[in-house]
Amino acid sequence: MTLTKNTKPALLLIDIQKAFENVAYWGGERNNPQAENNAAQLLNTWRKLHLPVFHAQHCSVNPHSPLHESHLGNGFNDLVKPMPGEMVIRKNVNSAFIGTNLEQLLRDQKITHLVLAGLTTDHCVSTTTRMAGNLGFQTFLAHDATATFCKKGVNGEHFSAELIHQTALASIHEEFAIVLSTAQILNLIDGNEFSEQIYH
Amino acid sequence: MTLTKNTKPALLLIDIQKAFENVAYWGGERNNPQAENNAAQLLNTWRKLHLPVFHAQHCSVNPHSPLHESHLGNGFNDLVKPMPGEMVIRKNVNSAFIGTNLEQLLRDQKITHLVLAGLTTDHCVSTTTRMAGNLGFQTFLAHDATATFCKKGVNGEHFSAELIHQTALASIHEEFAIVLSTAQILNLIDGNEFSEQIYH
Repeated sequence: MTLTKNTKPALLLIDIQKAFENVAYWGGERNNPQAENNAAQLLNTWRKLHLPVFHAQHCSVNPHSPLHESHLGNGFNDLVKPMPGEMVIRKNVNSAFIGTNLEQLLRDQKITHLVLAGLTTDHCVSTTTRMAGNLGFQTFLAHDATATFCKKGVNGEHFSAELIHQTALASIHEEFAIVLSTAQILNLIDGNEFSEQIYH
Repeated sequence: MTLTKNTKPALLLIDIQKAFENVAYWGGERNNPQAENNAAQLLNTWRKLHLPVFHAQHCSVNPHSPLHESHLGNGFNDLVKPMPGEMVIRKNVNSAFIGTNLEQLLRDQKITHLVLAGLTTDHCVSTTTRMAGNLGFQTFLAHDATATFCKKGVNGEHFSAELIHQTALASIHEEFAIVLSTAQILNLIDGNEFSEQIYH
């Protein structure tokens, strides 16, 4: 798998919505506070290079969820608000491919390469990344532009957000997607000054 | 979500194939050696009660994989060999719902409840369970009838098979499926002698 500007990769930002600022609601502990800033870096580069951008927006069917449309939490985080021309994919399950026309939109635009980021690593990001890879897209995931919350194990054990995040990434890497940092992705997409210094 | 014999749940066994006996090939360390025996217990009960059974069979497109059809590893483990009348779903990606007619078969048979087990917890079982839940099936996963292999983290750290298994289950439970033990599932499906003793 290769990732360059010329492969015309789409950026798919998953559920970067205000509701996730309420850490207490989602379990009490979150990792990687830089996730949204790193996602915004990816977004700014995609905009600069006029590459396709898709924003998945979780619209919970549970009226009590902060992700339900009746709540302010349904709105996008200010750092990554969609601009005109960027597709918004409204969904109500974890996978952005289920109950939506995302796959058809990507096929229609002849998009073969996807870069994913967003919230949360082990739920919506993992599920959408798994499906993207299984549907045949060349899939890349920005590990530092995603984050999650702590979880309780089936035997009652406590798993920290960072452990859930890292184990989720380990299960994804080289099976469903190539997992890279935001800096690595930007370097591949937007030229490489360092290698230019070496080779020119 | 409820699970009883009367909900006519289908049992979906994922990739319980001989290839997974080669632990060295899959990373060198596996957890839960009882997974196949527990899956066989579920299968025997489903057969006794004439409930629907589906076997997913991974047919790798990589000729070097032990799961490729040219290798003996592609065959089912002897403990859970399909019998006439049980559906075999041949697939070549992690999800048993992608590139197959599994969803259509389930809808045609008016199946609404699914019990999953098989290999491996964090790859094919997790991906198929996630999609089952997101597609709207009432989904249950038998945690002790699944197993996985150790993984390397994106920062090079080693994660044991048991840790990958337990964190994968923690991310699935109550988000995509209800995670139960084989005994708990059998108790729900095949009567409850203990509660009969209490209530009669």
